Amino acid sequence: MFDRVWLNANLASMEGDALGIVEDGAVAVTAGRIAWVGPRGAVPGPARETVDCGGAWILPGLIDCHTHLVFGGDRADEFERRLAGEDYAAILKAGGGILSTVRATRAASEDALLAAALPRARTLMAEGVTTLEVKSGYGLDTATELRQLRAARRLGAELPLSVVTTLLAAHAVPPEYAGRRADYARLVAEETVPAAAAAGLADAVDVFHDPLAFDDAEAGRVLDAARRHAIPAKLHGDQHADAGSAALGARHGVLSVDHLERADAAGLAAMAAAGCVAVLLPGACYFLRETARPDIAAMRTAGLRMAVATDFNPGSSPALSLLLMLNMGCTLFRLTVAEALRGVTVNAAAALGLADRGRLAPGLRCDLALYRIARPAELCYWLGGNPCIGRVVEGR
Amino acid sequence: MFDRVWLNANLASMEGDALGIVEDGAVAVTAGRIAWVGPRGAVPGPARETVDCGGAWILPGLIDCHTHLVFGGDRADEFERRLAGEDYAAILKAGGGILSTVRATRAASEDALLAAALPRARTLMAEGVTTLEVKSGYGLDTATELRQLRAARRLGAELPLSVVTTLLAAHAVPPEYAGRRADYARLVAEETVPAAAAAGLADAVDVFHDPLAFDDAEAGRVLDAARRHAIPAKLHGDQHADAGSAALGARHGVLSVDHLERADAAGLAAMAAAGCVAVLLPGACYFLRETARPDIAAMRTAGLRMAVATDFNPGSSPALSLLLMLNMGCTLFRLTVAEALRGVTVNAAAALGLADRGRLAPGLRCDLALYRIARPAELCYWLGGNPCIGRVVEGR
Ligand SMILES: [Zn+2]
Ligand SMILES: [Zn+2]
Repeated sequence: MFDRVWLNANLASMEGDALGIVEDGAVAVTAGRIAWVGPRGAVPGPARETVDCGGAWILPGLIDCHTHLVFGGDRADEFERRLAGEDYAAILKAGGGILSTVRATRAASEDALLAAALPRARTLMAEGVTTLEVKSGYGLDTATELRQLRAARRLGAELPLSVVTTLLAAHAVPPEYAGRRADYARLVAEETVPAAAAAGLADAVDVFHDPLAFDDAEAGRVLDAARRHAIPAKLHGDQHADAGSAALGARHGVLSVDHLERADAAGLAAMAAAGCVAVLLPGACYFLRETARPDIAAMRTAGLRMAVATDFNPGSSPALSLLLMLNMGCTLFRLTVAEALRGVTVNAAAALGLADRGRLAPGLRCDLALYRIARPAELCYWLGGNPCIGRVVEGR
Repeated sequence: MFDRVWLNANLASMEGDALGIVEDGAVAVTAGRIAWVGPRGAVPGPARETVDCGGAWILPGLIDCHTHLVFGGDRADEFERRLAGEDYAAILKAGGGILSTVRATRAASEDALLAAALPRARTLMAEGVTTLEVKSGYGLDTATELRQLRAARRLGAELPLSVVTTLLAAHAVPPEYAGRRADYARLVAEETVPAAAAAGLADAVDVFHDPLAFDDAEAGRVLDAARRHAIPAKLHGDQHADAGSAALGARHGVLSVDHLERADAAGLAAMAAAGCVAVLLPGACYFLRETARPDIAAMRTAGLRMAVATDFNPGSSPALSLLLMLNMGCTLFRLTVAEALRGVTVNAAAALGLADRGRLAPGLRCDLALYRIARPAELCYWLGGNPCIGRVVEGR
């Protein structure tokens, strides 16, 4: 006897290489896990409860695998001032840019960080997101970084949402370490990573590997610290320059390298060989009016798995819609519909190192998203609007 | 005694040249019209009902002044096929493109057209839209064009929404007139425009003036017909080439020329002198990956009023979010926050020839949109999410 079965639905299971479509299908759950998936006529047993989906489409609950959701303040004022013609260098000099978010985050209590993050998470959830990665990176000191991560953990406790935390203390150089970048990287490796590990607050460790941030040696130090604490790692990389982030990530066996607008084909092939995932962030390209594009053709050739995420953050991607990122992935990066949708399900799970979700298959978490659409392509096609009519987390 | 007063709100009244901000303000309504606007402390009389807005911002109800909201079918399948590498010419040859929408629209009953349009209109309304322009243009025969307009009229009757109808029979050449473009333009001028006028179905007449559509003489014939029936006119123009649409529109005294990605400065200056409005459609630029940009600097120099709209349509801008268009106007076209917000209020009203809305000022329709934001710039800054917490149409 199943706990519940969803009937009269079309499924995009993500099984196989494409969308894994089952028309007129059914999904059954027992104890929070998917117990059976297949054509409606073949459901192998009764259920305590039956849900008629009225012809809706069911996808695995969406996974936003790259966000900076927890922070203080916003940067709407800076956005306005730049459009009004103010010089960005002058804004930076006056304490704007990322450091204004650092100040606001440091000044915010854990409760305040949580309160600010809750409506953002609910906005993403309303589109069908059931798993959300949240990075720190606006504290740039151990106490504030851990406070961000605690707020992220509480987000997952307060909402019907699975939250994955990532320590991104190596996001930028804090003002206290101006001119002493390597010292800050050492602090992250020797103090922040161990503290986050001891508190069980970091599901992953991330580093911004970029000419504007941390170099190979500094990033390597932080990645090594993560490995010592058995925490998987990720990189922000190859965004503003081909910094060799793809190859560096492959050498370190990271879960994912994210951005990759300027990664070269050899680095991408190394990532594929190492089993890394490429996380594509079209919202940042759009918002920054970036003209470089990740080399999707090289990724396809290499067989590199591609995920798609919002990169939600106040500076370069204030994007609270994963569906909009599907459209941007297709429109700006020319992803196919199947690539885009696999990018927010099965491949997003892989980018987080999660084997228990992202597909509709027996044994996996019963996290579902239901949509009133005629075909999956509609999730990528429309700009705005929200066809999500239901969300299921662990069968509920 | 006012019917109602909204208190404890910040106002962006659009009075003057910028946002016309009144902090801690109030708006009073009598008989559906704004009776008073000003600082809360100065409200000149009592009201039957008081609404505490809790510090929300009030803007004039948003106006989407350019949509193709009423049509049959969608083009999600075509979107998917093009991303999968299918050749667009082949898709067109197989009956795809605009003609697939024409077929689906011709096959749809008025009820079916209305039913398809209702959720689209509700999606726009949820963001604070209170006035919506709807064009025909997917019938390309008199009966179907009028059916589209009747469905648009019913949309306004069924919803708390003001709908403005535009006859765009001169949108494309129907298959029956292949090779006989001028004959079709003559049909529009001599049959469709008079029929729409007789039925009171067209608040405006629009023509697609473009090397891919209708030339000066053909457009002029349709514009002349509109003038004979005392119906104001508009143009889609200077989108795919500098076709001189801006100057043509100025000569004909149209309400607006829309698109203008390739309009030259002289044409834009002529528009300004003639009192026309430039309607900017950033969603179409985004979706078509257009690299040309309307010459905003020339528009500013000329003192040309700029509106911003979704251009919602199934082929080139499936955009059901006017807030997203604010972001795209700022991000892609570098509009200021004030320009973008005036573009969906006071200047959008001007693009529709409506003097009774678009600002918070005594005597105007009491159409309001309420937002939970800290400053108006947030309406342009966030991508996705919806801070609209209330809509008022004619005081209700
Ligand atoms: Zn990021
Ligand atoms: Zn249009």
